[in-house]
Amino acid sequence: MTKPLQQTRLIALDWGTSSLRAYRLGADGKRLELRALPWGVMQLPPAGTEPNAGFEAAFEQACGDWLLAEPGTPVIAAGMVGSRQGWSEAAYLEVPIAVAHIGSNLNVVCNRHGQAIHIVPGLIENSLLPNVMRGEETQVIGALSLSGDNATGHAEHILIGLPGTHSKWVHVQHTTAQSELTHFDTFMTGEVYAALCGHTILGRGMEAAAPEVASVWHGFERGLQVAGTAAGAAGVLSTIFSTRTLGLTGVLDGAGQREYLSGLLIGHEIAALKTLLQNQGRLPDRVMLVGEDGLCQRYANGLHAYGFAGIEIVQQATERGLWQLALSAGLLPHTERTN
Amino acid sequence: MTKPLQQTRLIALDWGTSSLRAYRLGADGKRLELRALPWGVMQLPPAGTEPNAGFEAAFEQACGDWLLAEPGTPVIAAGMVGSRQGWSEAAYLEVPIAVAHIGSNLNVVCNRHGQAIHIVPGLIENSLLPNVMRGEETQVIGALSLSGDNATGHAEHILIGLPGTHSKWVHVQHTTAQSELTHFDTFMTGEVYAALCGHTILGRGMEAAAPEVASVWHGFERGLQVAGTAAGAAGVLSTIFSTRTLGLTGVLDGAGQREYLSGLLIGHEIAALKTLLQNQGRLPDRVMLVGEDGLCQRYANGLHAYGFAGIEIVQQATERGLWQLALSAGLLPHTERTN
Repeated sequence: MTKPLQQTRLIALDWGTSSLRAYRLGADGKRLELRALPWGVMQLPPAGTEPNAGFEAAFEQACGDWLLAEPGTPVIAAGMVGSRQGWSEAAYLEVPIAVAHIGSNLNVVCNRHGQAIHIVPGLIENSLLPNVMRGEETQVIGALSLSGDNATGHAEHILIGLPGTHSKWVHVQHTTAQSELTHFDTFMTGEVYAALCGHTILGRGMEAAAPEVASVWHGFERGLQVAGTAAGAAGVLSTIFSTRTLGLTGVLDGAGQREYLSGLLIGHEIAALKTLLQNQGRLPDRVMLVGEDGLCQRYANGLHAYGFAGIEIVQQATERGLWQLALSAGLLPHTERTN
Repeated sequence: MTKPLQQTRLIALDWGTSSLRAYRLGADGKRLELRALPWGVMQLPPAGTEPNAGFEAAFEQACGDWLLAEPGTPVIAAGMVGSRQGWSEAAYLEVPIAVAHIGSNLNVVCNRHGQAIHIVPGLIENSLLPNVMRGEETQVIGALSLSGDNATGHAEHILIGLPGTHSKWVHVQHTTAQSELTHFDTFMTGEVYAALCGHTILGRGMEAAAPEVASVWHGFERGLQVAGTAAGAAGVLSTIFSTRTLGLTGVLDGAGQREYLSGLLIGHEIAALKTLLQNQGRLPDRVMLVGEDGLCQRYANGLHAYGFAGIEIVQQATERGLWQLALSAGLLPHTERTN
């Protein structure tokens, strides 16, 4: 068997509820190869009845050949694979937490060939309304590694937004010496949007449309504004009904209604976030967005509409985060650069 | 054929999306008989292919024998039967509107036997976020007829709440001489609750429980408070996630989670309503609740928790409203008391 042309330094797995992405990373964390598989924690491949047979089979498909070609390559994984329903539970670490502390608390599980898989723990913030994340902590670490040096001398407050099924907004106090993850909020915006479109009367008048249709962007922008109006004080349980009535009154067509609801929910999320930030005196110096490109663009527009500045969309945060965590866990030779 | 012992004065139909209730009303609007049928506008009985065959068949089942026994009895109907998808569209009337004006704008459709059915129009409020109702206007009129005289000399501000799939909150300026419906809001709380329980991750840990279980009421009360806390400023898209995390952290069991989410949504609805009322300077002199008993009790608790006073739960508002509308439409002899 011939070795790959470029040596693998790390196998990094982004293993969520409904998908598994396997990165083969080379020197300096450079991406050499990526595989996307449908084997999320809640939908594993058919396998034997032994405990964890589904995880073993998915792992084998994801990177078995890479390990055969280069035995001993370290493996790291983040996401729901470390949950109670995952391969091996990696207990939550408590927020606030120094970011560097996360990499020294990886959980190790060995597969049937004795290969160690280092699993990143999720984070919990205990309060009146507790908050949890799994996987996003890794993206936050990746985003921070791409954030450049803070040469100001004082701690910079970075807000990192991770829009998606459950959006997370993570606060980091960032200095050259240390970064501390101080607080985070969750908004179920993506999942609520899907439930409203698929399982309430709001979805009945909707149609999908090509993204270039003018009414689409118009609908989104119109929805985005609502939370900032006097009527927006009624809150999202009330304002969403206008998706239907603006259809009934002929203002929005089917495609426009779908986009309007998207803008309306994102607008309420960002307006509420701003209220929280103002109440807590936590207004950020800058905002980094991590996630699917089109969705990040919607959130960037929303942040702009509600007066946020210094907004940046970050790429490849997951693989960068897994690389950083492997470094701080000592899985890579110290000669590897951190960026 | 023998006549019924008590003469029918009005056949009153409450005809919604998923059900049809037929009231046989006697002198002074006294209920002589009630039939509940599953034939809503969106689920009519199997019938021929002729236009409106389903409506004809449902109507026949609901009250055909009553009309045969007492031909010429007036018939009135309210609800989605007057919508675009109904038997015959009764165009929306615009708010603000004098309540007495509604009864003089009934739409008439005749069935295949030439029987006239008088359909109550819905209401629309055109604004940035338009609002519509169909059926609730009738309940509002019924509630007002039960509200007693206003002997204060000045206009009383009554807030009428109609909790349900889509909650309506209706503002009425009420004097002895005239009542004016000035404004209303819609909250999709009931439908959102069902969608969240049935089609998001929040429903996964839930269980139904007997209503006497202590954790149930505890969960509801706990949820009710959330919107009033500092964390509640995050809004409902964010706070609902705590349904899951309070389960994960062992604070709420499966039944408690279901009730907590109910309380949380109702609390957000009432807190937002209060904000709107304060912003608009519309705080009511009293609040009347119309709807299913258990649900009205939940809303009464919520209103109390958020500082509302003068709360009353009203019974039989629908049949009282249909009676009042028939009176003001001239369908009944003038000797009938208005109650």
